[in-house]
Amino acid sequence: MRYQLFYWPEIQGRGEFVRLALEDAGAAYDDAARKAGGVDRMLAMMKGVRDKRPPFAPPFLKAGRLTIAQVANILFYLGPRLKLAPRDEAGRLWLHQVQLTVTDFVKEIHDVHHPLGRGLYYEDQKPEAKRYATGFLDERAPKYLGYFERLLDKSGGPYLLGRKSSYADLSFFQLIEGLRYAFPKGMKRIERKVPRVVAVRDRVAARPRIKAYLGSPRRIAFNEMGIFRHYPELDR
Amino acid sequence: MRYQLFYWPEIQGRGEFVRLALEDAGAAYDDAARKAGGVDRMLAMMKGVRDKRPPFAPPFLKAGRLTIAQVANILFYLGPRLKLAPRDEAGRLWLHQVQLTVTDFVKEIHDVHHPLGRGLYYEDQKPEAKRYATGFLDERAPKYLGYFERLLDKSGGPYLLGRKSSYADLSFFQLIEGLRYAFPKGMKRIERKVPRVVAVRDRVAARPRIKAYLGSPRRIAFNEMGIFRHYPELDR
Repeated sequence: MRYQLFYWPEIQGRGEFVRLALEDAGAAYDDAARKAGGVDRMLAMMKGVRDKRPPFAPPFLKAGRLTIAQVANILFYLGPRLKLAPRDEAGRLWLHQVQLTVTDFVKEIHDVHHPLGRGLYYEDQKPEAKRYATGFLDERAPKYLGYFERLLDKSGGPYLLGRKSSYADLSFFQLIEGLRYAFPKGMKRIERKVPRVVAVRDRVAARPRIKAYLGSPRRIAFNEMGIFRHYPELDR
Repeated sequence: MRYQLFYWPEIQGRGEFVRLALEDAGAAYDDAARKAGGVDRMLAMMKGVRDKRPPFAPPFLKAGRLTIAQVANILFYLGPRLKLAPRDEAGRLWLHQVQLTVTDFVKEIHDVHHPLGRGLYYEDQKPEAKRYATGFLDERAPKYLGYFERLLDKSGGPYLLGRKSSYADLSFFQLIEGLRYAFPKGMKRIERKVPRVVAVRDRVAARPRIKAYLGSPRRIAFNEMGIFRHYPELDR
């Protein structure tokens, strides 16, 4: 099965959590919206001219006749197929639950630079972003990362499920990478308290396929259009 | 199987999306945190003193030996068991995807009164809430509800999956009820464009078990501690 991933071509964004899973598994896939005419095709699918079940927003994955949207839903589907999730129901639901907590965290990370909504430019909500960032760095980021740290402690490590890696570990990697990019100062402080999450990041970075991917042009660089944006005035 | 739902006892909140499914199906369940000592039990489970897989936040459901958190994940699990979801994978993933879009919408609804984060009181972010509310009523709420309207059109109705109701229809009911409570003026305007979603609301309200539930003390009244809060200054 060759998968087709549809996501905005110029950012890592939410699509990156899916890309990392496909890359780590060595799956055959096209980053479809980065090909000629791909964005138009993506937008047409969202309009649902032909599809009875159009997605609300990218990313979405075409897998044969299925179109699956929402990052956590895509990973839930791909997990057992890419050997990045257990096959039993209890294990799959647990991993999905953790991924949905990652989803919640990602939304809060996005909102640091857009607390008043995406209808306004960052420049029009800078003082508000600063106030949001304070609570984010002091409370929310430590709370989410501290939760993942606790889970890694309870699993016995090194990964969320113990000895076997899963798509959630790849997401932990992406969270740490993105947060380091956006908040280098804040993360120095926060990382001290979550050594197990940082160790997952290091392990994932060293996985051969991930290492190759990160060095390839398929990995888009962080920038100020994505989820993780480096605005020095928001870091502390 | 008797389920145990754990959620804050004084609000409908996110727990309500699960309660509605359990009630509509006539399932046997305890609203566990509303019983004596229930909140302490809930908090102990989150601390994970005994559990290797503690949830991040309520609501969560105990189903035999499983503990399942995250509303959409709970509904994904309950769906086929309560006959509120199809059994085939494609159907389950599609319904889940719609529910995850409901989840995203609920977060944005919450943020209308807490745009700068939950670390601050509403009173400390009133002007910001007003700015957020404008974009919410003009763009975001119409966009989400318009998407659901389009899906109902495509399904042929009256429900999301066509003739058979599902847990997502119960969530549509709750969205309309909650938004009417929070934004009576704004919703008068918005509802005109989403007659199919409103019709789902009406059908759900008339279902015998839901009707009985809404008239019972098990249904907590809307209030200014939950997701949907009526602050007249945010409505328009």
